[in-house]
Amino acid sequence: MPDVKSLDPAQRRAAHAALAARYGEFQALNMNLDMTRGKPCPEQLDLSVGLLDCLTRKEFKAADGTDCRNYGGLDGLPEAKALFAAYMGVRPEEIIIGGSSSLTLMHDTMSWAVLFGAGKGATPWAAQRPVRFLCPSPGYDRHFAICEHLGIEMLPVDLRGDGPDMDAVERLAGDDASVKGIWCVPKYSNPTGEVYSDSVVQRLAAMRTKAPDFRIFWDNAYCVHHLGSGPAQLADILEHCRRAGTPERPILFGSTSKISFAGSGLAFMAGSAATMEWARGHLGFQTIGPDKLNQLRHVRFFGDPAGVERHMQGHAAILKPKFDAVQEVLGRELAGKGVAEWTRPSGGYFTSIDTWDGCARRAIRLAAEAGVKLTPAGSTYPYKRDPRDRNIRIAPSFPPLADIRRAMEVLAVCIEMVSLENLG
Amino acid sequence: MPDVKSLDPAQRRAAHAALAARYGEFQALNMNLDMTRGKPCPEQLDLSVGLLDCLTRKEFKAADGTDCRNYGGLDGLPEAKALFAAYMGVRPEEIIIGGSSSLTLMHDTMSWAVLFGAGKGATPWAAQRPVRFLCPSPGYDRHFAICEHLGIEMLPVDLRGDGPDMDAVERLAGDDASVKGIWCVPKYSNPTGEVYSDSVVQRLAAMRTKAPDFRIFWDNAYCVHHLGSGPAQLADILEHCRRAGTPERPILFGSTSKISFAGSGLAFMAGSAATMEWARGHLGFQTIGPDKLNQLRHVRFFGDPAGVERHMQGHAAILKPKFDAVQEVLGRELAGKGVAEWTRPSGGYFTSIDTWDGCARRAIRLAAEAGVKLTPAGSTYPYKRDPRDRNIRIAPSFPPLADIRRAMEVLAVCIEMVSLENLG
Repeated sequence: MPDVKSLDPAQRRAAHAALAARYGEFQALNMNLDMTRGKPCPEQLDLSVGLLDCLTRKEFKAADGTDCRNYGGLDGLPEAKALFAAYMGVRPEEIIIGGSSSLTLMHDTMSWAVLFGAGKGATPWAAQRPVRFLCPSPGYDRHFAICEHLGIEMLPVDLRGDGPDMDAVERLAGDDASVKGIWCVPKYSNPTGEVYSDSVVQRLAAMRTKAPDFRIFWDNAYCVHHLGSGPAQLADILEHCRRAGTPERPILFGSTSKISFAGSGLAFMAGSAATMEWARGHLGFQTIGPDKLNQLRHVRFFGDPAGVERHMQGHAAILKPKFDAVQEVLGRELAGKGVAEWTRPSGGYFTSIDTWDGCARRAIRLAAEAGVKLTPAGSTYPYKRDPRDRNIRIAPSFPPLADIRRAMEVLAVCIEMVSLENLG
Repeated sequence: MPDVKSLDPAQRRAAHAALAARYGEFQALNMNLDMTRGKPCPEQLDLSVGLLDCLTRKEFKAADGTDCRNYGGLDGLPEAKALFAAYMGVRPEEIIIGGSSSLTLMHDTMSWAVLFGAGKGATPWAAQRPVRFLCPSPGYDRHFAICEHLGIEMLPVDLRGDGPDMDAVERLAGDDASVKGIWCVPKYSNPTGEVYSDSVVQRLAAMRTKAPDFRIFWDNAYCVHHLGSGPAQLADILEHCRRAGTPERPILFGSTSKISFAGSGLAFMAGSAATMEWARGHLGFQTIGPDKLNQLRHVRFFGDPAGVERHMQGHAAILKPKFDAVQEVLGRELAGKGVAEWTRPSGGYFTSIDTWDGCARRAIRLAAEAGVKLTPAGSTYPYKRDPRDRNIRIAPSFPPLADIRRAMEVLAVCIEMVSLENLG
């Protein structure tokens, strides 16, 4: 297909008219499609129904005899720590299993840093205002919302396909003591799907930071969430930091929200033994301990890391056709026209589209008016402000395949229409 | 038995020698008894094993069709809110079901007050330092620990058998804008077992406070935990506050930790609809939502408030003999001797003993040296400092009956020995 910029004015008008006609047909269908939600579909959840009945009235004890129905144990059952330490690529003493929400662990960790300091003996961030955080963007809106809520200023940093622009990260973190950390989704990033390269991980670990209490919030939410072709390899941030002499710098997070049940899974945080001791020191004031029965369910159901891996193949089998449909429709509708670029993720939950500057908001609005709900414009940027108004996040996991195809057709038509209008 | 103070010196020496001999016999038994833990015993937990298998692979939907295995819903399933609103004596729009730990909800609520202010538009407590809290004492160590951790100064207030000394409370709250709230365990208090009278509840609701952002943290942990003779009636704090024009003053907490499974139950917070809106406003930054499957389990298992009530009769049948054993041994060993006073709780998890001033720490140490572990001296007071060194908290729920009898004998002997030594 020709690049729209190569069309002469008459061709553009004809193309726009044809698109407008298709758009009108879409509107007449009175569709109500939702592409906003990065959540598993029912078929994915069905993979884990065995969790619902894997404990019995007589099986509620951990391997060491702990009655999981009672109080006790602040940071997780030993067998759950062993299994999910392997999952997170850390040692059992480097992990805490806490509740069902990694978002809560991230929020709480940042709250501790604000109120008490980001480590033993550190000065509270609240006493060091302003505090700034590096935010590789586009990124996860709930990360940015935590910063905004806690009064932490956000500095967007571009992503480059293999992680953040490390020259910018090193300059900002190296020059300014108020820059206290960085949000990272290092594998199959939300929404761009990229996997941080070894070089990026190594530079994050080794870079000089002006702030001695600089922290990497390493949200490895999609650790095993590959789409069929085998997991990408991510360098071991904790080991890199140990070697670089910055062992307290990274705090890792993860969960089974998109492995077992969303909202009823297990959440993890990990880091050096000293970091975990610091975390337990705060956790102990806010809980007597997490739900051990749910930990026992997960251990019984998955068995070992290979069990998790096998289980994820089931997820991939469901998700791959949905992600393929996104590619297929975008390719068919937009390839060669020069109006958008999009990611081809090998894992995670999203496909990310960049339109021309200034076109995303209007394309999203047009799609909404044809019954296709997309993640609101700007959501993937700090303060919900996409400086170039170009990023559109597609979440294809939940809707049925036919809905995804139809929604992507609508979106493609909207993007092309808006682009033509922008050309004038 | 004669009051030890009425004994002449020779009688005292003889009594002490007899006690020392018994103490020596106890030591020779090499016992290892633990009376510290306010947690359910296995037989109590067995009452709830039906929770472990009440969901099936096909039953995971809420009444409105919500797939409880997936994300969604910040403040609880409608049927869980209905059931536990009735339990807490509030309306469904006045409750949030959040996670499994009411301690976490209390901690988080106090953190929100510190960081953001105790209500919409209120000034953060962090910007109003010093902040002080009234702490009816003896009380719950984890309440006090939250205050200490968050830098909130604690002012102990005496308990009078029907709640805190309201003259003191009204004076302190009325005179000092830095007094921002009060901790209350209004029913079967930990550890004194008292139930707040209607007059106390009414005065708490209606009193003038110098601080406009004064909050009552109303931890109704033992709402239905009566010991067989029927539940005591507690006045409705929310209704009293509504009538008194202080609807935002109380924030109620509760959980099923000592109804279903400790650590794997449901936790609640409640208050005016405006207070709940404020809470959701903060909760939304820290979680996508609570474990709905566990909520569904509880709804299926208990059915309705009458089901909870029936279930609690089973708990009472197990606990009553244990609490009776405490009374029986204390009565047999110490009645009339004038060395201690103790509570006769009609519910809750504790019996509280007051020795003579200056005797508790040594009695607890002596008991430990005879193999009986008791809650550390001072634990029931702010900063772990019992100003009169007299309070001993007994937690009889967990140990078997024989252990309780033996432990109480040891403690009684220790108290009497220390008292005689104190007489000189």
